[in-house]
Amino acid sequence: MHRPGHALGQDFYRREDVFEIEVNRIFLKSWILAGHQSQVPEVGDFFVFEIAGESIIIVRSDTSHINALLNVCRHRGSRVCLEEQGHTARFVCPYHAWNYDLNGALQAAPQIMDTLDTGKYPLRRVRLENFHGLLFINFDVRAEFGPIAADLGKVLAPYDLPRTRLAHRESYRICSNWKLAVENYCECYHCVPAHREFAVGHGRARPEPKVEALKQEVLSRAQSCGLSAELSNRGWNKAEAVGMDRYVDRYPLLKGHVSGSRDGKPVAPLLGSVKGFDGGATEFQVGPISYGLVYCDYVVLYRFTPVRVNETNCEVIWLVRESAVAGKDYDLQELIWMWDVTTRADKKIIEDNRRGVDSRFFEPGPFTPMEYYTQAFTEWYLGIMSQCEEGQ
Amino acid sequence: MHRPGHALGQDFYRREDVFEIEVNRIFLKSWILAGHQSQVPEVGDFFVFEIAGESIIIVRSDTSHINALLNVCRHRGSRVCLEEQGHTARFVCPYHAWNYDLNGALQAAPQIMDTLDTGKYPLRRVRLENFHGLLFINFDVRAEFGPIAADLGKVLAPYDLPRTRLAHRESYRICSNWKLAVENYCECYHCVPAHREFAVGHGRARPEPKVEALKQEVLSRAQSCGLSAELSNRGWNKAEAVGMDRYVDRYPLLKGHVSGSRDGKPVAPLLGSVKGFDGGATEFQVGPISYGLVYCDYVVLYRFTPVRVNETNCEVIWLVRESAVAGKDYDLQELIWMWDVTTRADKKIIEDNRRGVDSRFFEPGPFTPMEYYTQAFTEWYLGIMSQCEEGQ
Amino acid sequence: MHRPGHALGQDFYRREDVFEIEVNRIFLKSWILAGHQSQVPEVGDFFVFEIAGESIIIVRSDTSHINALLNVCRHRGSRVCLEEQGHTARFVCPYHAWNYDLNGALQAAPQIMDTLDTGKYPLRRVRLENFHGLLFINFDVRAEFGPIAADLGKVLAPYDLPRTRLAHRESYRICSNWKLAVENYCECYHCVPAHREFAVGHGRARPEPKVEALKQEVLSRAQSCGLSAELSNRGWNKAEAVGMDRYVDRYPLLKGHVSGSRDGKPVAPLLGSVKGFDGGATEFQVGPISYGLVYCDYVVLYRFTPVRVNETNCEVIWLVRESAVAGKDYDLQELIWMWDVTTRADKKIIEDNRRGVDSRFFEPGPFTPMEYYTQAFTEWYLGIMSQCEEGQ
Repeated sequence: MHRPGHALGQDFYRREDVFEIEVNRIFLKSWILAGHQSQVPEVGDFFVFEIAGESIIIVRSDTSHINALLNVCRHRGSRVCLEEQGHTARFVCPYHAWNYDLNGALQAAPQIMDTLDTGKYPLRRVRLENFHGLLFINFDVRAEFGPIAADLGKVLAPYDLPRTRLAHRESYRICSNWKLAVENYCECYHCVPAHREFAVGHGRARPEPKVEALKQEVLSRAQSCGLSAELSNRGWNKAEAVGMDRYVDRYPLLKGHVSGSRDGKPVAPLLGSVKGFDGGATEFQVGPISYGLVYCDYVVLYRFTPVRVNETNCEVIWLVRESAVAGKDYDLQELIWMWDVTTRADKKIIEDNRRGVDSRFFEPGPFTPMEYYTQAFTEWYLGIMSQCEEGQ
Repeated sequence: MHRPGHALGQDFYRREDVFEIEVNRIFLKSWILAGHQSQVPEVGDFFVFEIAGESIIIVRSDTSHINALLNVCRHRGSRVCLEEQGHTARFVCPYHAWNYDLNGALQAAPQIMDTLDTGKYPLRRVRLENFHGLLFINFDVRAEFGPIAADLGKVLAPYDLPRTRLAHRESYRICSNWKLAVENYCECYHCVPAHREFAVGHGRARPEPKVEALKQEVLSRAQSCGLSAELSNRGWNKAEAVGMDRYVDRYPLLKGHVSGSRDGKPVAPLLGSVKGFDGGATEFQVGPISYGLVYCDYVVLYRFTPVRVNETNCEVIWLVRESAVAGKDYDLQELIWMWDVTTRADKKIIEDNRRGVDSRFFEPGPFTPMEYYTQAFTEWYLGIMSQCEEGQ
Repeated sequence: MHRPGHALGQDFYRREDVFEIEVNRIFLKSWILAGHQSQVPEVGDFFVFEIAGESIIIVRSDTSHINALLNVCRHRGSRVCLEEQGHTARFVCPYHAWNYDLNGALQAAPQIMDTLDTGKYPLRRVRLENFHGLLFINFDVRAEFGPIAADLGKVLAPYDLPRTRLAHRESYRICSNWKLAVENYCECYHCVPAHREFAVGHGRARPEPKVEALKQEVLSRAQSCGLSAELSNRGWNKAEAVGMDRYVDRYPLLKGHVSGSRDGKPVAPLLGSVKGFDGGATEFQVGPISYGLVYCDYVVLYRFTPVRVNETNCEVIWLVRESAVAGKDYDLQELIWMWDVTTRADKKIIEDNRRGVDSRFFEPGPFTPMEYYTQAFTEWYLGIMSQCEEGQ
């Protein structure tokens, strides 16, 4: 039995059957960040996104539309797209040459075009929402995005994310269950001991009461910098449906820091209509595994995709102003330094956590105040997992 | 539920328990190609054949007899033969030196010869049938081979397979269930899109009606080339018992091609009593996973052995006229080119097929006319798997 | 069903659920050799011992005491100690910096020291018994060691094991269930065929009746060499409780041999108060997986720790007189030669045994007289496994 105020028990991190329930109840119903529109600027540009054994083609079908298509041929089930990213006029299955257009419609199938009802065999569609250039997908085609947009839109607007572009992305393979990664991301109690580089400049690494005054200072500077002071602390346990969870907050950077960088100084040109560095950073969440952190000069996107019960892929994406030129307006190594070093440290922490959680003698310990958001995650999770089956 | 005319559902390719049922109902009762007699020319020559975790020693015990012995010591169960192939006078278990002769009889066991009833502990025998030099094994010692010999013997006779020898063999590890490999082998709908090298010269890559006239031309030339025009299209669903399935057919090569080679020209001396190139190729099948393709100048043997539920070993063997000398009568690289390039392509196709079949959203699609033999395989397979248990 | 006098059936070596029962009934209740006190000479010295996914810190907390602490933080479960061995004043969890002293008491936890009842969160303790410098652990804190000490103490005393030190240790990864390794260690029927280097000099490789006279000769020399002639042949099926099994015996070395070395000659200075080479070797066992072999000049300790159902770690430790200096009093390569070459051979033997035991056709064969102790092990094992569940 779960003990309130304590971490989850071992079974939740190890059992194959628990993982499959999670896929059905959480991942097939949640909004998940697939990438940024700058990854597919031209019609026919595509990239492939993978989660829990599923493969999705994200492809621009016309100047104003991007599709998400299941990468499974409707004939014998082969992958139809074998490249991770590229450009194409159509997707031709490498097995028997069934031929799909950029909307997934079956256009041709050798030898049987006279008898096959091609309209019955399109590539299966996945919902895709282009929100400020961020591409969110949902396997549930009826899922709503409106309330998420309402909560986050105004706060993100000044940064003009549609006019940013992907400067770098990196995948970190974590040998643990996805929940140990999310639990790690959702608390900063570990930041002082484990992330010296981060803790020195980010208020998040301090107990909230200790930086409350600083936070108010930052918020008071918001308007003059062209930023919104609106916040929306919904987060876990407050969304209309599973997978619509969202959160946005702004916290202060510490003395001498205006961005997430080695020395706290700017590392890229100001984003959008931002007029200056107010000394804060905006963090947001959409769904259970997609997170972002917006500095005045760059954005870092985080996503923890479950691969299998004990393997998680953490993908980190760095966005800069669309017009910024590498080597001139920013130094790529300096841009990615903070979150590369921090993510590498987290990978190790999470894997060492897993080793102990695997012990037959592991007893979940008590959450501390700085872990309130991780605790809220575990309560959200247990709420979903303890629901009765509804014929699924 | 299976939908007629469509491929198998996902579970059949992934579940461990399904695989174990397959082993019991199919692999332990089927005729399986172990190799060719030219691999064991001298008394004491042996090689080891592995399937689904079982290891079988194929050893020549006298000039006219070849045995198949289970490679498991009757004492504590060690492998008794650790080499893949070689020559020996007896098999001495490396653990405690129990000593077996080439017929598997226990000849000596240190320290206990005075008390042990050695007659009770021979290496377990597996059935072996030497058919035209092809060595077929069957775990079921009561299995019949006669009807297979009757159907295939006359067609194969002119090639004089006992007087061929192994020129090369190659193993291709396929990360997928064995059925995806067999399904691939049993249809040539994929040959035009995926095997350009093969499709340009082999009639099998075209819909049957389109090459029917060409086929009749080839058959009419059969007699003058010393070949039989008899065919036997039994194949799936027509054998007397599981594992006795067999098939033989002759199809035309395309304009300018008389063999399976880079340029369609001969690559080795004519086999047996064959008098000339009639422009055809004979394909045959014995049991569910063993196949052959006989050109006038060489033979290629194919076998798909299940290793575990999601791993298959494809072994390809090339046979040439016994007297042919490498570097003089044939160029080995040219000989193996066609089926090496084709098998490498198939390995990739099959593995990409597996990735899609693994999707939670995979829905088996409709078979097309050129996939009739793959469809027959799935019907044969479902017939076996849907039988009631008979106390096994 | 098990057939008396025969080896165990296949399921015992392969099933995950059997392995988990073994962990509960055997490994969590048995005395297991963790190492030797010379590995932690100074206060704060530690090393980590792993078994079946559990990690234990062995640390010297003061000059006269060594602790065994579970390497799992009481907060979120991370490993608290990440190094295999080293020296420290305290264990600080790398995740959130919870801080434990060398006795495992929680000393500090950032941000929450005013509210946390630290006394409730010590690192869990494991029993540790320092017996003649050999460190034995037991997960069962109520386990008794007294009877083991009584049986083995007098025999080991002359060698003064507390005044030896670790000269070398080596881990051999064996891809098989732990029982195939223990079964191998418990019989020397395989020594003549498989361990020529060992068999030439050790009486254990011969049937007991054939070396009985030689054994009596050795025992008669015991007193003059300062050794005890007392033996205690308890072993399997005679202990007061699971995991207290012990055994000690002395067997003769063969003509020209006085130690376990390449040429049978001494390889290190005499141990303890031993006055000369009497031509014998003392072997002992404590619990199911820990063994030792004491020559007059060195000790070799053997331990087979289960890692998972089909993986075992064999660790071998060589001890020499504390004052012996490598390169001067002994040559390390010569010291370890015998048991390194023998263990490498056993690793291969055991793995080849596993391959055959995995066959669907494996039938356990009859034990021979020289395998009496392996047979006793299987009977001991079956006795434990066939007990009714007592609410575990």
